[in-house]
Amino acid sequence: MTTIKDVAKDAGVSVGTVSNVINGARVGKEKKILVEQSIQKLGYEVNTLARGLKTQKTDYVVVILPELENPFFSLILSNIEKALSERGKQIVICISGGDAEKEAKFINLAKRNKIDGIIGITYSKIDKYLTDSMAFVSIDRHLRTDIPYVSNDNLAGGRLAAENLCLRGAKNLLCFQTISSLDSEVRNRRRGFEQYCIDHGVRYNCAEFSETQGSSIYTSFGSRNLIRNVLNAYVNTDVDGIFASSDHLAVVICEEARKMGKHIPEDLQVIGFDGLRLLNYGSPLVSSIEQPVELLARTCVDMLMKILNHEEVHSITNLPVRFVEGGTTKKMER
Amino acid sequence: MTTIKDVAKDAGVSVGTVSNVINGARVGKEKKILVEQSIQKLGYEVNTLARGLKTQKTDYVVVILPELENPFFSLILSNIEKALSERGKQIVICISGGDAEKEAKFINLAKRNKIDGIIGITYSKIDKYLTDSMAFVSIDRHLRTDIPYVSNDNLAGGRLAAENLCLRGAKNLLCFQTISSLDSEVRNRRRGFEQYCIDHGVRYNCAEFSETQGSSIYTSFGSRNLIRNVLNAYVNTDVDGIFASSDHLAVVICEEARKMGKHIPEDLQVIGFDGLRLLNYGSPLVSSIEQPVELLARTCVDMLMKILNHEEVHSITNLPVRFVEGGTTKKMER
Repeated sequence: MTTIKDVAKDAGVSVGTVSNVINGARVGKEKKILVEQSIQKLGYEVNTLARGLKTQKTDYVVVILPELENPFFSLILSNIEKALSERGKQIVICISGGDAEKEAKFINLAKRNKIDGIIGITYSKIDKYLTDSMAFVSIDRHLRTDIPYVSNDNLAGGRLAAENLCLRGAKNLLCFQTISSLDSEVRNRRRGFEQYCIDHGVRYNCAEFSETQGSSIYTSFGSRNLIRNVLNAYVNTDVDGIFASSDHLAVVICEEARKMGKHIPEDLQVIGFDGLRLLNYGSPLVSSIEQPVELLARTCVDMLMKILNHEEVHSITNLPVRFVEGGTTKKMER
Repeated sequence: MTTIKDVAKDAGVSVGTVSNVINGARVGKEKKILVEQSIQKLGYEVNTLARGLKTQKTDYVVVILPELENPFFSLILSNIEKALSERGKQIVICISGGDAEKEAKFINLAKRNKIDGIIGITYSKIDKYLTDSMAFVSIDRHLRTDIPYVSNDNLAGGRLAAENLCLRGAKNLLCFQTISSLDSEVRNRRRGFEQYCIDHGVRYNCAEFSETQGSSIYTSFGSRNLIRNVLNAYVNTDVDGIFASSDHLAVVICEEARKMGKHIPEDLQVIGFDGLRLLNYGSPLVSSIEQPVELLARTCVDMLMKILNHEEVHSITNLPVRFVEGGTTKKMER
């Protein structure tokens, strides 16, 4: 393989000059052209990890996600990869399983290995591991005032869900949400839902179960019992509209409610959150509040690039959501 | 942050000695202990990327996958991450979208950046980019005689699918498969299916569509038309048992067949491949040939570790599969 020495020899300059060209340091114009010509001629490829030792830049970004069994996280990863790839950045992936220690390990790894920055969905207390020198963009969660985060308009999403259930004739609503013990933007889904109900005098209830219990709905049948029990407590009252905090949860709720003899959407209407219909998810497709996943991913990546360019950034929490009609809500009453 | 110089000073040795200890080179026992004590005392953390310049090892592994929208690939990634993480390795992810150029780019990146090795699911002609010096483990595809690959027993899987359709009363079978233009182990699913039918004098047909058309079943509704057309051509004959090459395809086939007025499993039985019931996939869950995803991931990682240790490795193509009963096949006739 061509080395930096070969390039220096070919261009008739010192190794230091080649190194300066590669790392963007000041070099006379003529020498720069000579070096660039030799690099192209010899097909020399820069070892970005080695370069990172000097420039403090490696073109690697760590992406922290709780899990990949949840198709929403896979879709986020897929879109972040696309956006970073277009900017010549590679992803080092950390699938945390919600383990704060593992997240901290990757934050330290990123520091040690001069990784450019981190994009993370995390529900742990990782604030203390983050130093000013590490560029970090958080998704859906406010970590610290100096750490920017990106989120869609969860408040509007919750309102939209309640509104659409009511417009379709539901009179007694239930918000069924998995929550983390830490505050995150996701909680605003419930807040928006409640605001709408209060503003419009709609009867409603809220049922929540913690993230640690809930995450297993993606990988086990055990937590179905939990969902069934919650449903049992409400469905046999006259609840006729449910807002679930994810499409996956909505699919499971529909399945369990059908087993209880409920017809969907005739007896019970269900609206999920995420808009995973991209994945042809569920049968019939659940009606849902669609998150703009691609925009969310691009916004995170743009924000990270700005931080790396020392530009000022502000958190963004209003990426647009919209209601998408599926087979689990009635047609609109006119 | 503690530097190698701090460690050398504390231990009373030269920087070179510390470096030798870190990189596993020969160092006197006494000095080694002193250095290790200082490393621990000062909490010094090795920059693995920098170390890679000397030891040619970085503890990074590139994982190449075609896409993440297909939940089977997400599950593979999740399991590979777990297995590599246990060995202190991190993943640099390449989502190729089937683009050979992007795969080649990551292979070159891995070489330049001294990445330890690559685990890949690829359907492109990437053989030429792989050199002897790059450890590579392929999943499901035979690339070159010197590149080991891991696969489950697809031949047995295809036989099992045909056998189970027959045992449950189906008389006229259809194998419905997405295929790549390149030969891969996945084709053995059809071969096993055909072998069983021929051996037992069972009527059968095979319908195939190419990977490029088929991959979009995970992300768009357009290719549903393709599936519908193929189904139309067969379902209105007396086909009463379908073996689909993935669970996702099986779910779509069931949905489309129901729209055509077929009752499943009464009129038409369907068996998929993958065993994604882990993800609670489809309603009812499709009957399926389950792949041992965790074992597949662990076997790849074990194999990569052996290559890195200069141990001899051989391709493994017989990881066990099994039939798992879902709601899309009849109960067994006794």
